[in-house]
Amino acid sequence: MDPVLVEVTRGARVESSHRGAAVVVDPAGGVAFQAGDIDAAVYPRSAVKALLALPLVESGAADRLGLTDDEIALACSSHSGEEVHVAGATSMLRKAGRDGACLECGVQWPINEAASRRLAAHGGAASALHNNCSGKHSGFICLACDRGEDPAGYVRPAHPTMREVTAALADMTGAALDEGNRAVDGCSIPTYAIPLRALALSFARFGSAQGLAPARAAATRRIRAAVAANPMMVAGTGRFDTRLMTALGARVFSKSGAEGVFCAAIPELGLGLAVKCDDGAGRAAEVATAALIGRFLHPDGAQGEALAGLTQPVLRNWNGIAVGAVRPAGPLA
Amino acid sequence: MDPVLVEVTRGARVESSHRGAAVVVDPAGGVAFQAGDIDAAVYPRSAVKALLALPLVESGAADRLGLTDDEIALACSSHSGEEVHVAGATSMLRKAGRDGACLECGVQWPINEAASRRLAAHGGAASALHNNCSGKHSGFICLACDRGEDPAGYVRPAHPTMREVTAALADMTGAALDEGNRAVDGCSIPTYAIPLRALALSFARFGSAQGLAPARAAATRRIRAAVAANPMMVAGTGRFDTRLMTALGARVFSKSGAEGVFCAAIPELGLGLAVKCDDGAGRAAEVATAALIGRFLHPDGAQGEALAGLTQPVLRNWNGIAVGAVRPAGPLA
Repeated sequence: MDPVLVEVTRGARVESSHRGAAVVVDPAGGVAFQAGDIDAAVYPRSAVKALLALPLVESGAADRLGLTDDEIALACSSHSGEEVHVAGATSMLRKAGRDGACLECGVQWPINEAASRRLAAHGGAASALHNNCSGKHSGFICLACDRGEDPAGYVRPAHPTMREVTAALADMTGAALDEGNRAVDGCSIPTYAIPLRALALSFARFGSAQGLAPARAAATRRIRAAVAANPMMVAGTGRFDTRLMTALGARVFSKSGAEGVFCAAIPELGLGLAVKCDDGAGRAAEVATAALIGRFLHPDGAQGEALAGLTQPVLRNWNGIAVGAVRPAGPLA
Repeated sequence: MDPVLVEVTRGARVESSHRGAAVVVDPAGGVAFQAGDIDAAVYPRSAVKALLALPLVESGAADRLGLTDDEIALACSSHSGEEVHVAGATSMLRKAGRDGACLECGVQWPINEAASRRLAAHGGAASALHNNCSGKHSGFICLACDRGEDPAGYVRPAHPTMREVTAALADMTGAALDEGNRAVDGCSIPTYAIPLRALALSFARFGSAQGLAPARAAATRRIRAAVAANPMMVAGTGRFDTRLMTALGARVFSKSGAEGVFCAAIPELGLGLAVKCDDGAGRAAEVATAALIGRFLHPDGAQGEALAGLTQPVLRNWNGIAVGAVRPAGPLA
């Protein structure tokens, strides 16, 4: 039974609570923190996008195509569909000699509601470029084109590009990825159930580069620097990952996944962490991730204040009245 | 420890699970079903809007002001801010000699994303009329004006209108409502923590009218008939309550609340039910409510098919691929 990691209060009472598992490990697999069943396999969903972007960078494809740092960050993103994200994905595809018609992620209106309304107000319509995964998919298409492969069908497990991407995920996590633990993600690529502990280990290695071959180690550093310099590209206005990395820069790398999953690295400490809320709640996974980062990193000054705001966000109603809060609980309190 | 009531699958695995409590009672308080801690106090939030609308109808204010059945349904709603809802709230306020400037619920863009984009595309902006609670608030203003009271400040616990509304809630639930269990709701009115069993009892009484004074009994029948005839007004396009009552008509009355609460009545069986998902997930509360209705009502034909679709909804990704489902679990399986 996983413990309560996060509580949601209203007035003087706990209104809702979130159970889950969380683990922090070093690159050798040593456990620095654990709560709940850390060996349970979970679908990481979008939390491992940075690992799926490794082949794009370490193969040299990103450099050969002239991808910029903000485009590399976008390749790791679950973006909000804001204008800057759509422009970035469009640019990536153009560098590969392609356009949005090649995207196989499906059509989605921008997650950012204001961006969605702006699009509608200008007579626009949702497209695959607005899909929160279009940056990742554009990266896959860039990789395929640089390899001289036809990108068509790149979302399928057997496509050469998806095989290369999946191999990187398997190598970084040490997990076997096959039909037995495979499902289909929101954007139609495969997602594999992987033990939470292995996900944390992969981010300890991603953040420290320990134990990685030189080209991969260089790719992890390049991706981390690209995201730290462009935190807006990895999520969007007001989003957790963007706010966290805007405040803490390269001191943390974090990535949300759907259904309450989060992965993060604390490079200066060589630690990786992974969180899964049993109920799939993103609000709880965010607070748990912020609490774990604070527990190990202890940032002060403006960084500390920003992290505190993410660790115990105040809930306000439609009139701006503070009605409650989300806060770490149990082993995270 | 509350049991798992609902599971979310992806591929062959359970990706997320939702714990909670659920109870079904008759008008005498006899328990027909229980799971989890049914005596825990929960904030019902919007799930009791129909009870808060009782004074508007039983006082005769609704008839004196000429409110139509769709407007009475709107007074019980958490609506999606679609054009029909905004028109209804505007009409209610006009009948009270007021307008949207009197609403104290706060500004909210329509919950319905297409309606929100239509509003933006026509150069419009969000207002309090678009707030999902504007129908309920318009009902409060109608009641205040019919009583000859100044509606200003009607959201405050001490306002005569809110005292009358709160007294109806206390009477129907049998719960003491005071500062000790009070918090502020999303639309700024008070919400009170009430045992789940008492919430179910109030809906057994609301659905059966058993034990109620004649004017109140008539008001419950009037409200139930108004909502059954206008299920679009109580929620909106594609929403659970609207789909459920469109399919089952007056055979059920259901109302969602925020943070995983649901209340419902099955009038022909004299049963009331209440659900609270520990984690606040609406998707799970919906499936639990549908499962409980199916367990007792056993609808067949088209009604049965519609209820089955609400009891085990298929999850599709951005390409329309079926990737999983939400399904009842444990004591609801």
